[in-house]
Amino acid sequence: MKLRVETSPSYDVLIEPGSLEQLGGAIGESRVAIVTDTNVAPLYLKRAADSLRAAGKTISSQVIVAGEASKSLANFQQLLQACILEGLDRGSAVLALGGGVVGDLAGFVAASLFRGVAFYQCPTSLLAMVDASIGGKTGVNLPEGKNLVGAFWQPKSVIMDIETLRSLPEREFRQGGVELFKHGLLADRQLATSIAHPDFTPDGPSEILQNCIGRSVTVKAEFVARDTREQGARAHLNLGHSLAHALEAVSHHRLAHGDAVSYGLLFVSLLSRERGFEDWTAAARDLLAWVAPDPLPTHSFETLLPYLQRDKKNRGGGLAFILLEAIGRPLLARDLSLVELKKAWENLWEVTHGTDPQRPQS
Amino acid sequence: MKLRVETSPSYDVLIEPGSLEQLGGAIGESRVAIVTDTNVAPLYLKRAADSLRAAGKTISSQVIVAGEASKSLANFQQLLQACILEGLDRGSAVLALGGGVVGDLAGFVAASLFRGVAFYQCPTSLLAMVDASIGGKTGVNLPEGKNLVGAFWQPKSVIMDIETLRSLPEREFRQGGVELFKHGLLADRQLATSIAHPDFTPDGPSEILQNCIGRSVTVKAEFVARDTREQGARAHLNLGHSLAHALEAVSHHRLAHGDAVSYGLLFVSLLSRERGFEDWTAAARDLLAWVAPDPLPTHSFETLLPYLQRDKKNRGGGLAFILLEAIGRPLLARDLSLVELKKAWENLWEVTHGTDPQRPQS
Repeated sequence: MKLRVETSPSYDVLIEPGSLEQLGGAIGESRVAIVTDTNVAPLYLKRAADSLRAAGKTISSQVIVAGEASKSLANFQQLLQACILEGLDRGSAVLALGGGVVGDLAGFVAASLFRGVAFYQCPTSLLAMVDASIGGKTGVNLPEGKNLVGAFWQPKSVIMDIETLRSLPEREFRQGGVELFKHGLLADRQLATSIAHPDFTPDGPSEILQNCIGRSVTVKAEFVARDTREQGARAHLNLGHSLAHALEAVSHHRLAHGDAVSYGLLFVSLLSRERGFEDWTAAARDLLAWVAPDPLPTHSFETLLPYLQRDKKNRGGGLAFILLEAIGRPLLARDLSLVELKKAWENLWEVTHGTDPQRPQS
Repeated sequence: MKLRVETSPSYDVLIEPGSLEQLGGAIGESRVAIVTDTNVAPLYLKRAADSLRAAGKTISSQVIVAGEASKSLANFQQLLQACILEGLDRGSAVLALGGGVVGDLAGFVAASLFRGVAFYQCPTSLLAMVDASIGGKTGVNLPEGKNLVGAFWQPKSVIMDIETLRSLPEREFRQGGVELFKHGLLADRQLATSIAHPDFTPDGPSEILQNCIGRSVTVKAEFVARDTREQGARAHLNLGHSLAHALEAVSHHRLAHGDAVSYGLLFVSLLSRERGFEDWTAAARDLLAWVAPDPLPTHSFETLLPYLQRDKKNRGGGLAFILLEAIGRPLLARDLSLVELKKAWENLWEVTHGTDPQRPQS
């Protein structure tokens, strides 16, 4: 399956089982620096490198330590220097083979090396496939916070080998499923139900994975194409993320991102229902049951509030949230009151304690 | 005088005496981080800050050590962190007050902070006015070389207070004059003769400076607008720079950039004449006499060649140079032979030794 992301410049997204073996033919540049991590390198680096070499490319590879801590300016500098020592020039390419961390870091390297070289993404996690690899956001963290430094830099193409999902732990797969569910909420009601399909698993049939990932990519690509630099509509992709970022910060990132977003989505469903919008709280609770997140951090609303107030969507003091008038109809509400937010937070506590936020055995 | 640079997005260039005092009105954002250096801060920081404060802006300022060594990733990180600690958000602005080093570094900070915030340039050297502040090239150096990391990031506007040139040493003024002369060669024959005007000095009449700088900016802006990301026509701005970069590298950057380009331009005039193109070697020699560069590094052509071969314009082994068929008619020649280049280098030696490359008393 091939999709097109209509950014400027536009690019293709290839979603196929075994597509890592077609990598050589998908890349025009003759010199390619592969960036991957210690989890992915033993599994897929050889496959990717062999395909590139068979197509006559000169390749080098850099393996970073798996994990968020690698998204640093120190690694950024080290990768840039490695690329230069390996002889890359303006006509060369950087290829990210891995999850979101690898993609964000390698993408910022590609955006910055000689003020920008060609960039390719081979995402190997569900989260990276449905979210991080689409839209051109690249960057690294600072001690002051995540993703504070970076660039919008679109890849020349994204090659998704859905067979790589087979090596993904079920829990990580479900973390990625949260963003796919979110894309369903934003624009594809049927996609939002797909997580309930019993075959939607890391080793499920290719057709199911291909269909779900393709639809999720389509939704994200449409938002991104309408608003590449996140001035307007693209902010809708932040659905569920205002609370999620606050929960991640307050827990010092001990709460996983997908877990945090699953709580964030339920929170938004409660806010939306209170405003008399479509009631999709049941779907949000189903998601939570499927994701089986770590427990909601035990913080008072007052502790959380300063973190909510740091949200990038806020302007001039008011608190902004993406709500849904209905599934498929997001809106940016800039007038959330503290009373509303506090009530939704208390509701979230009730609901999640009722459903037992301890992770069930799956 | 107000000029427009038709990049996407486009922006204004204001060239006026005293325009630093109008800074507050030229900037829309309410929070502004000023980046300047130890040379410029004592002279103009207060004037800029006062104007911004009078317009109700919240400002902060970061002063880097003057000089090329400050264009480092270490300073990049430090400035980013300072901006965050000062409370900048996506709606804030970064303002570069100074020469090319400040502009390149602050521009890369603006391009990367939150994946890009508004950027303003107040160039205070002639070189920064006619060259570095126009075109959106930003970046820092690596131990492996200059400007290897960066972004294309256009300013929202460029405010040139030509009164700031009065504090510029004559020698630095003439370094900037080299690029102005180059712009004349590329597209404005009369501009190329302006360096000969006795009033073209740091403290000359505003009208002369305004006219010359305006014409130089016009030439550069046209090349940049035709080719923002340097895929084609913009490479013509590299006139004289192939040899210049080699001379800088071989001298470990002891030879100043303007000096190196003045030699580079004479070198190109000799190459062009050998090919039977318009003979403008006399103009190039006049430039050299005006600039009074440090002596040409005493290296054999064979020592220089590897540095010429590293030029970013080269593709697939051939050596590329920008030549002039005539003043105003640049072309990219990809077929320079080693024999041609060696002969021009030997000619350059003869010519510069004939005119005595030791700096005369001015």
